[in-house]
Amino acid sequence: MPANRKLRIAFQGELGAFSHAAATKLLGARARLLPFESFKAVFEALRRGEATHAVIPIENTLHGSVHENYDLLLASGALIAGETTLRISHNLIALPGARLSEIHQAFSHPVALNQCRQLFERYPQIKPVSFYDTAGSVKMLVKDRPPGAAAIASDIAARLYGAKILKRHIEDNPRNFTRFFLLTKQSTFPKRRNRPWKSSIVFTTPNEPGALFRAMACFALRDLNLTKIESRPVVERPWEYLFYVDFMGSQTDPKVARALDHLREITTFFKLLGSYQPTP
Amino acid sequence: MPANRKLRIAFQGELGAFSHAAATKLLGARARLLPFESFKAVFEALRRGEATHAVIPIENTLHGSVHENYDLLLASGALIAGETTLRISHNLIALPGARLSEIHQAFSHPVALNQCRQLFERYPQIKPVSFYDTAGSVKMLVKDRPPGAAAIASDIAARLYGAKILKRHIEDNPRNFTRFFLLTKQSTFPKRRNRPWKSSIVFTTPNEPGALFRAMACFALRDLNLTKIESRPVVERPWEYLFYVDFMGSQTDPKVARALDHLREITTFFKLLGSYQPTP
Repeated sequence: MPANRKLRIAFQGELGAFSHAAATKLLGARARLLPFESFKAVFEALRRGEATHAVIPIENTLHGSVHENYDLLLASGALIAGETTLRISHNLIALPGARLSEIHQAFSHPVALNQCRQLFERYPQIKPVSFYDTAGSVKMLVKDRPPGAAAIASDIAARLYGAKILKRHIEDNPRNFTRFFLLTKQSTFPKRRNRPWKSSIVFTTPNEPGALFRAMACFALRDLNLTKIESRPVVERPWEYLFYVDFMGSQTDPKVARALDHLREITTFFKLLGSYQPTP
Repeated sequence: MPANRKLRIAFQGELGAFSHAAATKLLGARARLLPFESFKAVFEALRRGEATHAVIPIENTLHGSVHENYDLLLASGALIAGETTLRISHNLIALPGARLSEIHQAFSHPVALNQCRQLFERYPQIKPVSFYDTAGSVKMLVKDRPPGAAAIASDIAARLYGAKILKRHIEDNPRNFTRFFLLTKQSTFPKRRNRPWKSSIVFTTPNEPGALFRAMACFALRDLNLTKIESRPVVERPWEYLFYVDFMGSQTDPKVARALDHLREITTFFKLLGSYQPTP
């Protein structure tokens, strides 16, 4: 599919990051990948047209919603064109030929190191060493070849940098999943048959009792199913909240369109972030 | 207040961590502080009675809810006895006598390094270096005295380890706040007059349309104000959700008690995490 080469996907992290794996799941392995240091730079690349798409993590089952990315998404005006969920599984990765018994330090991002505490309890000779990035630690391993060192990262990072997986699924908690959004400037993504639609919106309600309840009524009275609701305080204005809501249905469905019209009537701010078909 | 010496507060991180600052705000500077490596160890210390209280971060304005701590809280049976919110402000910290022009590397947790990108853009001679902990990087600085090195951490960490603040408020985003819970095994915390009450609950609803709307009605029909609502998917059971709800009022108020009875009727799981008076 040479057409896919026209896709240029911005993501945060080094090649081999979990966002890279999510991009591959969403758009296939042949799309061109553009790694950036920060989420801000990812949105900037999309805005400038350097990237046709962006893939960003939006929530994790252990660490919650990535509010920073909701903020950047709202400010950017980009649209959600897809969604997928990835199980975050860590691996102990070393240079080809290395043996587990020789390893005495493991490099990775501290969040990943923290998610693999049982490994360090079981192998006390292996010391955790903080590094700026999970996939970046594999890249460094292969480049600098520090003796007795390993890295903790995704299997895609091991494959990409030609390193070897010594131990798979070393994360303590198997319920570690991250949900990613695929973003575009203009939603022109091909529709796929027989896949359900989902929509994401953000709104604020007036600071009066029952305002959220009335907002919920727009969906409940039309039998539209919510799949996410989250309030977020507005830092500058105590007692005001942003709400993030996801629900099943597309903006092109007349029932959804009426629910959103109803919601616009009773909210002080409203934005549709996109309607999309999740990739299972 | 020598009585405060009887308080032993468990928290995650090194002395000087933001949880340490939150503990001081909640219980005063004379309580004994017990630092632990992991949140799991914090809950374990509370369970064993080694600690009388625990202070844990529960949500951050940039990074969302700390679901890991909600999980540990639910599993532990501990109660929320207090709440406070802290502005997360980072400082560039060095050894006494050091000058900004001599600094060529800054150690800290990668999350903190990421929150100070503008500093590294403005002073390109200073390179960020990942470390396992913010306060731990100040501790290391004072102990190992690496030449030309600084750390990024809280002002309390600078004071505690006898280091010097070279630059204050170096965080890019001033809207970085963390909310902390104070936990006890049994809620016997003194009540303070003229301070409002807040309660936190967790529940699951049956998997049927409008279930969340009916749960919200328990509050809306009694004019009880929600201050937080957040859904969280149950990993093992697609289409089932845990809801975290905070509202103004105490379980000892008859109107609140009736709302919670009503909620118990229509939920498949319900737990009151505690009623408490936030510390402003």
